[in-house]
Amino acid sequence: MTKLNPGERIDQLLSQDIQIIQSSDVFSFSLDAVLLAHFASIPKRGAIVDFCAGNGAIGLFMHPRTHATITGVELQEKLYDMAKRSIELNQFNDSMTMIHADVKNITQFIKPDSVDFITCNPPYFKEAPNSKKNPNPYLAIARHEIHLGIDDVFQQASKLLKMNGKIAMVHRPDRLIDILHSMEKNRIAPKRIQFVYPKTNKEANTLLIEGIKDGKTDGLRILPPLYVYGEDNEYLPEIKEMLHGTS
Amino acid sequence: MTKLNPGERIDQLLSQDIQIIQSSDVFSFSLDAVLLAHFASIPKRGAIVDFCAGNGAIGLFMHPRTHATITGVELQEKLYDMAKRSIELNQFNDSMTMIHADVKNITQFIKPDSVDFITCNPPYFKEAPNSKKNPNPYLAIARHEIHLGIDDVFQQASKLLKMNGKIAMVHRPDRLIDILHSMEKNRIAPKRIQFVYPKTNKEANTLLIEGIKDGKTDGLRILPPLYVYGEDNEYLPEIKEMLHGTS
Repeated sequence: MTKLNPGERIDQLLSQDIQIIQSSDVFSFSLDAVLLAHFASIPKRGAIVDFCAGNGAIGLFMHPRTHATITGVELQEKLYDMAKRSIELNQFNDSMTMIHADVKNITQFIKPDSVDFITCNPPYFKEAPNSKKNPNPYLAIARHEIHLGIDDVFQQASKLLKMNGKIAMVHRPDRLIDILHSMEKNRIAPKRIQFVYPKTNKEANTLLIEGIKDGKTDGLRILPPLYVYGEDNEYLPEIKEMLHGTS
Repeated sequence: MTKLNPGERIDQLLSQDIQIIQSSDVFSFSLDAVLLAHFASIPKRGAIVDFCAGNGAIGLFMHPRTHATITGVELQEKLYDMAKRSIELNQFNDSMTMIHADVKNITQFIKPDSVDFITCNPPYFKEAPNSKKNPNPYLAIARHEIHLGIDDVFQQASKLLKMNGKIAMVHRPDRLIDILHSMEKNRIAPKRIQFVYPKTNKEANTLLIEGIKDGKTDGLRILPPLYVYGEDNEYLPEIKEMLHGTS
């Protein structure tokens, strides 16, 4: 019997029959996690690491699609604990584990040049002394670059990844330039980008990007755009399919 | 009476009632020129320069939408001459002129820090000693980076532009990284990007990008995607509107 803490609930991701422990007070996965797991070129075998794993959503979503081992890395103990319990709940213990650590220290836990694929749904918002942050400290850390910035992610990813290993990230389009700078600095060549638009005729509000360590810098592909909502403000079939397995 | 050389014809851009001298042997404007003129944040007044003007298409398309002066710069004499005659044909002589010059030498003709807006539809293809080029030398120069590369464009643009002047370019998405590098090196901050997709569910094949000289590097916007063809392989209404003024 899975132990739920106050405020927690179990949600089901119907498309893959996965159960996930959520908490509005602490952390609930967002559509971005679903989009990233769907976008990522998940390898069939090898070692996958999910940075900024939160309640483990992305790793849980990837699990049914791969025989690779999946290791989630989460700094916040409450989230790490939720993720661990979700892994047990889904009986994914054989091949999915969590590490309670700061991504910046990840080489203390995972050997450099040993990872095939990394996913990351990092905090999106720039940390500035006077920036307006969520008063909830769990959400503030998950959403603002308080403990981890874009450059930290790619620096650690570059250490962990094997040659030609890949990293897929979800972020905001207005950080594209920062992301490309950091990838270049850390020897990761961008290869695939997909922009997500809330609706027809709206600007993109989500960026999905994948790069390869020590890859050639030419041949960048811009995938077909993805729209989230229809004119009726309901999820479009492609998104429903990701969430529920049916449209 | 406009003099036409052998192989030349006069085409009409119906949406703006503009006539343009074309030649399949030498140069015909492409949809990319129409897309760029449509995408560009054309200023109402001031000085506009069109690099790699070809037969003058982009300048001619912009003319009805601005009171700014428009100066086309074209290296190839035959194309320069076609553009000049099209300007006369449309009686745009009051505010539109052509310069027969290499963009790399443009400061010999136009004063630095004097231009408000630059457009450029440059050669797209990387020049390599063994690259397969069009056997027609006019088309080879227009399409391959034989005389002008991305970096030349932004270097000269940065010289000509006033502070906060803008440049809009059309190119191929797989050169995005080169373009962003060159913009940064030349103090031009990317501000607006639009990707053009041939059809639904296809990858982007055209990139429209606009930057501002000495602008802040944050606040990049990814505009709604543009599709060219419908499932019936006909131009979609938005493209027909650009070309013919009606859908």
